[in-house]
Amino acid sequence: MENINNENSIGKKIYELTSNLVSICRSITGQGVRETLGLIQKRIPLKIYEVPSGTQAFDWTVPREWNIKDAYVINPQGKKIVDFKKNSLHVVGYSIPVDKEVTLSELLDHLYSIEDQPEAIPYVTSYYKERWGFCIKHNEKKKLEEGKYRVFIDSEIKDGFLNFGEIVISGKSKKEIFLSTYICHPVMANNESSGPAVMTFLVKWIMSQPREFTYRIVFVPETIGSIVYLSKNYKKMKENIIAGFNITCVGDDRNYSFLPSRKGDTLSDKAALNVLKFKHPNFIHYSFLDRGSDERQYCSPGIDLPVVSIMRSKYCEYPEYHTSLDNLDFISPEGLEGAYDVLRECLDAVENNKYYRIKCLGEPQLGKRNLYPTISTKSSKSQVKAMMDFIAYADGSNNLIDISNIINVSTSNLLPIIESLKGVGLLEIIDDRE
Amino acid sequence: MENINNENSIGKKIYELTSNLVSICRSITGQGVRETLGLIQKRIPLKIYEVPSGTQAFDWTVPREWNIKDAYVINPQGKKIVDFKKNSLHVVGYSIPVDKEVTLSELLDHLYSIEDQPEAIPYVTSYYKERWGFCIKHNEKKKLEEGKYRVFIDSEIKDGFLNFGEIVISGKSKKEIFLSTYICHPVMANNESSGPAVMTFLVKWIMSQPREFTYRIVFVPETIGSIVYLSKNYKKMKENIIAGFNITCVGDDRNYSFLPSRKGDTLSDKAALNVLKFKHPNFIHYSFLDRGSDERQYCSPGIDLPVVSIMRSKYCEYPEYHTSLDNLDFISPEGLEGAYDVLRECLDAVENNKYYRIKCLGEPQLGKRNLYPTISTKSSKSQVKAMMDFIAYADGSNNLIDISNIINVSTSNLLPIIESLKGVGLLEIIDDRE
Amino acid sequence: MENINNENSIGKKIYELTSNLVSICRSITGQGVRETLGLIQKRIPLKIYEVPSGTQAFDWTVPREWNIKDAYVINPQGKKIVDFKKNSLHVVGYSIPVDKEVTLSELLDHLYSIEDQPEAIPYVTSYYKERWGFCIKHNEKKKLEEGKYRVFIDSEIKDGFLNFGEIVISGKSKKEIFLSTYICHPVMANNESSGPAVMTFLVKWIMSQPREFTYRIVFVPETIGSIVYLSKNYKKMKENIIAGFNITCVGDDRNYSFLPSRKGDTLSDKAALNVLKFKHPNFIHYSFLDRGSDERQYCSPGIDLPVVSIMRSKYCEYPEYHTSLDNLDFISPEGLEGAYDVLRECLDAVENNKYYRIKCLGEPQLGKRNLYPTISTKSSKSQVKAMMDFIAYADGSNNLIDISNIINVSTSNLLPIIESLKGVGLLEIIDDRE
Repeated sequence: MENINNENSIGKKIYELTSNLVSICRSITGQGVRETLGLIQKRIPLKIYEVPSGTQAFDWTVPREWNIKDAYVINPQGKKIVDFKKNSLHVVGYSIPVDKEVTLSELLDHLYSIEDQPEAIPYVTSYYKERWGFCIKHNEKKKLEEGKYRVFIDSEIKDGFLNFGEIVISGKSKKEIFLSTYICHPVMANNESSGPAVMTFLVKWIMSQPREFTYRIVFVPETIGSIVYLSKNYKKMKENIIAGFNITCVGDDRNYSFLPSRKGDTLSDKAALNVLKFKHPNFIHYSFLDRGSDERQYCSPGIDLPVVSIMRSKYCEYPEYHTSLDNLDFISPEGLEGAYDVLRECLDAVENNKYYRIKCLGEPQLGKRNLYPTISTKSSKSQVKAMMDFIAYADGSNNLIDISNIINVSTSNLLPIIESLKGVGLLEIIDDRE
Repeated sequence: MENINNENSIGKKIYELTSNLVSICRSITGQGVRETLGLIQKRIPLKIYEVPSGTQAFDWTVPREWNIKDAYVINPQGKKIVDFKKNSLHVVGYSIPVDKEVTLSELLDHLYSIEDQPEAIPYVTSYYKERWGFCIKHNEKKKLEEGKYRVFIDSEIKDGFLNFGEIVISGKSKKEIFLSTYICHPVMANNESSGPAVMTFLVKWIMSQPREFTYRIVFVPETIGSIVYLSKNYKKMKENIIAGFNITCVGDDRNYSFLPSRKGDTLSDKAALNVLKFKHPNFIHYSFLDRGSDERQYCSPGIDLPVVSIMRSKYCEYPEYHTSLDNLDFISPEGLEGAYDVLRECLDAVENNKYYRIKCLGEPQLGKRNLYPTISTKSSKSQVKAMMDFIAYADGSNNLIDISNIINVSTSNLLPIIESLKGVGLLEIIDDRE
Repeated sequence: MENINNENSIGKKIYELTSNLVSICRSITGQGVRETLGLIQKRIPLKIYEVPSGTQAFDWTVPREWNIKDAYVINPQGKKIVDFKKNSLHVVGYSIPVDKEVTLSELLDHLYSIEDQPEAIPYVTSYYKERWGFCIKHNEKKKLEEGKYRVFIDSEIKDGFLNFGEIVISGKSKKEIFLSTYICHPVMANNESSGPAVMTFLVKWIMSQPREFTYRIVFVPETIGSIVYLSKNYKKMKENIIAGFNITCVGDDRNYSFLPSRKGDTLSDKAALNVLKFKHPNFIHYSFLDRGSDERQYCSPGIDLPVVSIMRSKYCEYPEYHTSLDNLDFISPEGLEGAYDVLRECLDAVENNKYYRIKCLGEPQLGKRNLYPTISTKSSKSQVKAMMDFIAYADGSNNLIDISNIINVSTSNLLPIIESLKGVGLLEIIDDRE
């Protein structure tokens, strides 16, 4: 593992990309999405797609495209008290254009704030109902006095496109591992600039590794984007995908969170639970009933993909969620790198989750093969114990994750043991997907 | 639900019928059984059957019929100290006739009382061994002095009939729901005048409802009655019955009790556990090893019917059980109505326990179908959450009770959601038994 | 059960044989093994086999034979401070011959002691690497002063034989129950003179009983012995063995221990867990990961025999383990007899673990068959309850151990009930292996 204090640590690099992504005003459609995809495309060979407004996708219709140039509120004294250019959260997502004078009472009908978090600007959207509105700190709202206010939103909703990015990295097998993240949340850091940033660096790592499986990786607007993507690809996805991960909220330093697939016992579930159990045993195990991101589509009846989420602080569950407090101070290089490491370890577990069989009957005599350490220390003892236990369960009916769970040794500790045993010709793979 | 304080509440009506049933002296055969069945027949279209003494039924023989006109004990001072006409519990069930003078010592050999409950008259029977005896309060027994006592029992045991009642209410399907209660316990209220009374009102309700299934409902003397009924009907019962409930001890206000079927995971078990979990989560979950009523026959090897019991205070488990203290003061309209409601909810769960499938891929867009509430309140939110969770698991592989258990919403709350979704054409039934 | 204080109790007899076995210096090969087998052969008709050094067995080679006549260390003052003839643990097993003067420093390189147990002589072996060494109490080692020491070991390692004993006791069925114990540990009592001693008396008992199954019983040197035996017999063993027990550490008075088979749910596991649950509910339930005896071979991938261990204090887990403190004071007649009884009960459970079915429909009327006790006491009540519960689950789908677990009555209490029910023609065996 790279030293995290190093200026060039992976964590630092992911943090830097996250910082760039944070500054872009995004929604489910529009210029911000294209800017975001462009920024990522500079780092990995992303293919960018566009789907016109009005396109049917399952039960949904691609909405018109929304773009915004400026927005503000001017108080009776002529002071600009709300300014989109300072923080794009100030405008309700998909606000229609407006330019008029309103009374305080009228204005209040269009102002959103959070009484319990008076210093936070909330994140509000209205994709499917026409509306205009501003979001402000509750403390600011309380100060407003009677009078005429100028409200101005220079936005445009018109036929255009929904955009998304895709990269397919082929492996030896046609079977696929699926990774998805979303690119529609503006400004905020953990939810959601961390996901696309971590994903970008995962793609770089995947491309640098030998691969058993093909990887299908998408950067989509949440909900409508995953629905559109599924509507075009779900048949082959259902046929090929053996494991999938939704990558979101992977930036802060708090506890790890796990959200299972709907079925709960897929290969993704098994890999994620196994890795978290050994690496971060205090992780929070949510139920699929706590879902709230694109697993809602990927795991829906008839789609049934094996998609889980490994997060740091889960959406909906941390106070800063969906407010201006979810900013770059809330996340860290260490938080990002931790999530990145866990996800890599899950991919390793899936890649190597084969059925192993020891080739001799009875215990092998490890001594004559120099598989016993020459000096016996506490750690060499536990290494020999791990090897003997691995052998005891390598009967062709247990795969890597099974054995790891049974003998209570992490898959990352078992992989070098497997290499040793293969090296001396003692181990064979029963179900090799090559 | 009707107001329970209303003079016309279902609870009051069931209580009134229970009161009428309590006053009848019953045993497993004889005039009391026929009187009881007659009283019920006035309310529902019961068919009454008779089986002659000596009839073989599986390993058993229908006993001779027992009737009793009078019985008493007169003390040396000429005072009638035990009087059948005051309480029929005073005579051991199936006592042979006797009319003689006995010493105190001889009398004591034939007197039954409970030392720990000195003010209770116990309930004692001797169906299969010829015997005579009296039951009295222990406090009365202790007062008895030396001298000659007159014992008199004007009973008759002779060839006759065993009687039982049956009503079959046909539904769309030949598949049956089976309900059984027993009519052999004299005088006592919870065990067992409550069962036939609640059953009578359940029958009225079932007849008033649209029905998927056919209902087979019996009022039998315990043990010998269910054995006789099974011996005549078990082949078609095994073929058709999908769920069954033994209705007993359904009158008092204490906790609910559940006794599973022998197999423990039948549709009846699932429906009962599901309903109790949501409606009365503190219910007591007994084991089949605690059985003691007709499930002993219905669940016996080779019969294997899916019969469970939902009770208030379970037989054998409350201090008043099988004594004169199990009287009308021990039960209440509220207790009876509570059990009646739980049983109706179980029948509703069984009737609607189909496999549902959402008809679109991905989440449906509820907004465009006005399935989102126009005003968002705490209860509307939980209603939308329940609907989304129902949809997520309506994949054709889960039935109503499965989904209820998974998403932690009662079947009674899911039924209106199912109606809404069917109404907008989003939901189909996979395994409709019509 | 025999009175344990009786001079002729089984416990006393097993203890006496254990005492005889303790005195023999044993290793995995050599004269000690043959002496041990000879001693046992005087009591039971053991067949003794020999396998020449150099024979291949799976991944292993039979080592050369080791014998030793004498060994000692003489200190600079001419005093014999370590003497093999006083305790054969003083010499590292398989020590090569040596006869020379060494400095204290050289000597210390060849001295083994336990700092934490300064009064214990440790048990050390070096079967597969040529070495010489002595084992002494740490307190003695600390006293050693500078100077020249004479070290002398009159041992011999040369081509010879590995010996083991086998007895096959035929039953009605070709299916086998397998029992294994080991005979390579010198001097110590619980681990391992108790195993061969208890096994000898089990064999006497098995020979005296009617048997459903054939018994394959072996006395082998640990590891290499079981590997050699398996390599010659594993095909028919895999075909025939339905249950197996490794008999080790069965001598002391402490808690019972259970080590499962690798698969964990074989007939042996079920029988052992059932017997221990009722007879010694506080037993310690180890994991197969805690294995350390011949189940390592018997349960290895591809061999997969259903072999478990029921022990008193498990090897590796008691302070006296593999030291001179594991002596005759550590074990007792009561400890040995307790293990002997548990093992017999397991064999009884396996022998009678058939699928039973009650022959009538509905509950049988026990009264008319005099299966109800004439006087009702607390113990007769629980006996009737056990019989009724047995009948309720004797549906042809549950075997003896299943029913015992379900109704919470030990198999030893169920066997007389089964006899009664068979006696009156109410019970049939569905899956009789005769």
